[in-house]
Amino acid sequence: PIKESYAGAGVNIEIAAKAKELIGKHAQSTLRPEVLSGAGFFGGLFEFKGYKQPVLVSSVDGVGTKLKIASALAKHGTIGIDLVNHCVNDILTCGAEPLFFLDYIAMGKLVPEQVEDIARGLAQACQEVGCALIGGETAEMPELYAKEDYDLAGFIIGVVEKTQIIKGKTITIDDTIIGLPSSGLHTNGYSLARKIFGETTSALNKYYPELGRTIGEELLEPHRSYYHQLKSLLPLIKGMAHITGGGLIDNVPRVIPQGLGARFNSQAWTVPPIFQLIQQRGNVDRQEMYHVFNMGIGMVII
Amino acid sequence: PIKESYAGAGVNIEIAAKAKELIGKHAQSTLRPEVLSGAGFFGGLFEFKGYKQPVLVSSVDGVGTKLKIASALAKHGTIGIDLVNHCVNDILTCGAEPLFFLDYIAMGKLVPEQVEDIARGLAQACQEVGCALIGGETAEMPELYAKEDYDLAGFIIGVVEKTQIIKGKTITIDDTIIGLPSSGLHTNGYSLARKIFGETTSALNKYYPELGRTIGEELLEPHRSYYHQLKSLLPLIKGMAHITGGGLIDNVPRVIPQGLGARFNSQAWTVPPIFQLIQQRGNVDRQEMYHVFNMGIGMVII
Repeated sequence: PIKESYAGAGVNIEIAAKAKELIGKHAQSTLRPEVLSGAGFFGGLFEFKGYKQPVLVSSVDGVGTKLKIASALAKHGTIGIDLVNHCVNDILTCGAEPLFFLDYIAMGKLVPEQVEDIARGLAQACQEVGCALIGGETAEMPELYAKEDYDLAGFIIGVVEKTQIIKGKTITIDDTIIGLPSSGLHTNGYSLARKIFGETTSALNKYYPELGRTIGEELLEPHRSYYHQLKSLLPLIKGMAHITGGGLIDNVPRVIPQGLGARFNSQAWTVPPIFQLIQQRGNVDRQEMYHVFNMGIGMVII
Repeated sequence: PIKESYAGAGVNIEIAAKAKELIGKHAQSTLRPEVLSGAGFFGGLFEFKGYKQPVLVSSVDGVGTKLKIASALAKHGTIGIDLVNHCVNDILTCGAEPLFFLDYIAMGKLVPEQVEDIARGLAQACQEVGCALIGGETAEMPELYAKEDYDLAGFIIGVVEKTQIIKGKTITIDDTIIGLPSSGLHTNGYSLARKIFGETTSALNKYYPELGRTIGEELLEPHRSYYHQLKSLLPLIKGMAHITGGGLIDNVPRVIPQGLGARFNSQAWTVPPIFQLIQQRGNVDRQEMYHVFNMGIGMVII
């Protein structure tokens, strides 16, 4: 009878080890003195000191089908930036500074160089906010993912002093809402955008004069981090909403006390060309646009 | 022209909200007094107090293609247990007790009841070890996953006092190695097992006298947690290895100081029938078996 083996079933332990090594190389550049773990540990170790009444703030995220754009264009260097910045922004809304990050990469076929590209992005974004890339899991699952497909999830842990948690509870009538510009779609609405523009390499390489670049370049623009812009302003902020799935419509009410509402002046900002293009080409309802996309506002502070 | 919408692109925000609500219901049962976050927060909040020199221990894991067995049998109630217990065992090897857990569920088609089954398993396993299920992300990605497919990743944070970290550094010649029985394949080797037994519903429902049950039931047996069995013994343990991908061969050396080796006496335990069945039916090399599967030993303590 035929000899069965793990490699024959599509899983190669040696390639996984190679991928792990490449990730480790990039993760190394992000380590902080608090990281105690080295090779061999089954967990990431982070010494926790210097806080009075620390509250750990955690979040988990994916990047949605922005992945499919990266795959179609074989550009995997920025998707890790998207993932880290999404997580950083999420915990920033509570006033937290990032401590460490772990990633989960699942692929149809493990290509170490592709994993390295992803890891490079993860490490770059972690470094920018002083966050340690402390661990990760790489899984090869040939029958769950198509050969060229992968999924990516990230987990962040940050910290905030209990007295400094941003809760939104003190928000009152006449408080000012400020929107900060997004860099593009960030990581939301890609299933719809892909349906409208197509996702073949040639469709994505089409140049749009309104954008001044190809639609693929526009759609791959990394999710922006608001950490450096906002960290010194945190004591002045009463509430903060990261504009992700559900748009301004669903996310802003999450941080506003019951009985209050937010009023947006649509004249106050110009919706960037990419959203106008999506709306026109897809004949998408205005309400639907504001429910699915950030429409140019990636973070709202009150 | 046709009106495009998010729902038309295969993503339904309302169904996602329903799934979120069902997960929240189960997560509620796991909360601890330290959990400060409620509805509306973009991050999970966990107050951290009562430690002298705390070290946070984190791990991220998936459950591999055990998922495909759960899907084929439409039994999603235990896969969450697999995921949590895998993570709990990983950080236990450093001596850490679990604090909180976050999950990532990505699906081709979001079925709230299926998500609830998964969440029930997550919550049950979290409750058993006193771990708060503090957050999660549910993503519907119709073009990344087949309709009935999903992926699942989990992220755990635990804590250990710095002086009590289990490092393996004090292991010396003549220390005793004790293997603790696994409950089955745990979460490793499923790509090979599926290839050997097939993964149609009828193949998985086949009864094997050696197992005393169907192969599907055997393969879905939840990954065992060693937390309660080992927590009071932690001060006596010099090193601990969770036997996951790579088996005894790759995992035990991770915790042993350089220059020392581990010797196993294969007469000391009986390899459970499932591994014998896999080896026979797949004509798998003995060395390959010990490299891919736990062979009946799920945790090794030294």
